[in-house]
Amino acid sequence: MIENMISIKGEKLQEFIINTFTKAGLPKSQAEIASKHMVYADIRGIDTHGVIRLPIYIKRIKKDLIKANANYKWENETDNTVVLDADDGIGHYSAHIAMEKAIEKAKNNTIGMVFVKNGSHYGAAGCYSSMAAEQGFIGFTTTNTVSLMAPSGGAERVLGNNPLSFAVPREDADPILLDIACSTVAAGKLMLAEQKGESIPETWAVDKNGKPTTDPRAGFAEGGSLLPVGNHKGYGLALIMDILAGVLSGASYGKKVNSLYNLNTTESLGLGFVMMAINIDKILPKAIFNTRLEDLVSMIIDSEKAEGTNRIYLPGEIEQTVKADRKETGIPINGNLYSELKELSRELGIPFNL
Amino acid sequence: MIENMISIKGEKLQEFIINTFTKAGLPKSQAEIASKHMVYADIRGIDTHGVIRLPIYIKRIKKDLIKANANYKWENETDNTVVLDADDGIGHYSAHIAMEKAIEKAKNNTIGMVFVKNGSHYGAAGCYSSMAAEQGFIGFTTTNTVSLMAPSGGAERVLGNNPLSFAVPREDADPILLDIACSTVAAGKLMLAEQKGESIPETWAVDKNGKPTTDPRAGFAEGGSLLPVGNHKGYGLALIMDILAGVLSGASYGKKVNSLYNLNTTESLGLGFVMMAINIDKILPKAIFNTRLEDLVSMIIDSEKAEGTNRIYLPGEIEQTVKADRKETGIPINGNLYSELKELSRELGIPFNL
Repeated sequence: MIENMISIKGEKLQEFIINTFTKAGLPKSQAEIASKHMVYADIRGIDTHGVIRLPIYIKRIKKDLIKANANYKWENETDNTVVLDADDGIGHYSAHIAMEKAIEKAKNNTIGMVFVKNGSHYGAAGCYSSMAAEQGFIGFTTTNTVSLMAPSGGAERVLGNNPLSFAVPREDADPILLDIACSTVAAGKLMLAEQKGESIPETWAVDKNGKPTTDPRAGFAEGGSLLPVGNHKGYGLALIMDILAGVLSGASYGKKVNSLYNLNTTESLGLGFVMMAINIDKILPKAIFNTRLEDLVSMIIDSEKAEGTNRIYLPGEIEQTVKADRKETGIPINGNLYSELKELSRELGIPFNL
Repeated sequence: MIENMISIKGEKLQEFIINTFTKAGLPKSQAEIASKHMVYADIRGIDTHGVIRLPIYIKRIKKDLIKANANYKWENETDNTVVLDADDGIGHYSAHIAMEKAIEKAKNNTIGMVFVKNGSHYGAAGCYSSMAAEQGFIGFTTTNTVSLMAPSGGAERVLGNNPLSFAVPREDADPILLDIACSTVAAGKLMLAEQKGESIPETWAVDKNGKPTTDPRAGFAEGGSLLPVGNHKGYGLALIMDILAGVLSGASYGKKVNSLYNLNTTESLGLGFVMMAINIDKILPKAIFNTRLEDLVSMIIDSEKAEGTNRIYLPGEIEQTVKADRKETGIPINGNLYSELKELSRELGIPFNL
């Protein structure tokens, strides 16, 4: 199934997103930062977390479910931690300033850890961990999400698949960037299998009675639940991430987290995030860290390969390859999304020039 | 296959371990702490990480591959981090004092993070994260291990399955205690399948050519590699844990980590650990945290269950159930291990009274 695709350069897409957000009422500085993180995802092939979400963000801004003029407040500050009350502002901006603060604290105090409450959807987790890595720090972030997963033995969506991301800076290469969710696969994979009429492995989801299923519709659209990766391992990790990002931050948690796509509500999303930065140089001289890291990297990428494997990728390398391509050729946008963006610009009364 | 089992009370087993360690030259304080963490594992049913390791620890102490009189040194101290050079001392002791230090720093500065280099095998990760939880802090630990896993697409053991553990304190219940390794299963499961003549799922291991295998012998004894849980997810997590515990601490990493069971060497294990404690009350008032946590716990344990499931367990609850049983009935030790311990006491010239 080859769809009708339009290629759009990253800069052009970002400009469009900025115009859309500012027209919807977002301050320019926030629109710029949010657009940057959305295009960050698109240009790396993380198409589920980029411009595809723009229409729903705008819908939520219009209903004040994402606040265009949020009042960001720092609370309970210590030398190495602080809580940000994001007041339902655009998630990418609150996540961005939270990671900036974590980096600042790590500069002064080795470890910086920032907790965000009243957060909105922040897009791809890797955007924020990599902010730390770009400044030479090890970065970590997690967020809770709408509940999609059953715990081991369960038949109900009670936990998000709560992504977590680590980024580690390298001296002469892009950071090692791990960005994973705690379910075996994302819900999007079940929707895709349903569209294609394919069955799914039994490790992906349970039906609404908690029985493992190979039917993607039973596993998701008909009220099933995603399964955690590695069963109790992914369940436990998702729970811990919810405790850190949700319970401890003061955000919502578990089933109380709202869905980005539910507009029939007066409740905001209520998400929570954690941002953490680690100042390598205060623990081990940076030059020594760099040498040792490259030695470990060599062990891995130069190790014996399985038949049919030409290259062993580090976490994040596949996305970096996509980025190199898309810098040249642009970001492919499918026909449906293109029409949606066109309609959005018409509604907002801004020129459509994608 | 029911083996000949002897039940031994935890206190009695701990006394035996203390006598054995002290006779082998370990200072009494270190023997006491190491024995406590070993019995912690045994009494919770984590039989692979308790007294079963005593004979090899003693062999290593005799060869000075674990130093009975290690010189523990703190380095590069900041308000919230410090590196412990454990000088190849017994792993449980260095891990214990490292977590104590992390807790102390968290008391004063919200976050405490301690990195250990020149570490020896520390047993069950949950021993240390739970130390933090017992004092009301959120605890985290990870360690690297001997390389057993291939990265995605690999055919060689280049990464440990690097366990990680989080512990979260509850007001009137045992902590939530997650303790997981980054491989789909532990190597012990392949050895057990081999003994029983059973085949294994293709997600457990690859053979020495990197091909997924259902033959447990090909997957481990004949030079295969364990597979990471969730493929790239477990691979990435294991790599990050090695970067934190190994590269950043100043310990060994990747293939350079030595095996506990290789005595034909002059090299120590070279393991690295991370210990972290988070001071909940400085982030959110503890009473509020407790209420919110119990609300999340209720959502999970009271959620709809799959057919055939009577109870949804929190991470660590199964082990707590085993502990309650074994407090009553004692710790079951199989005949082979019992003989080994008897032989060990004979060699060391201490009375055998198990």
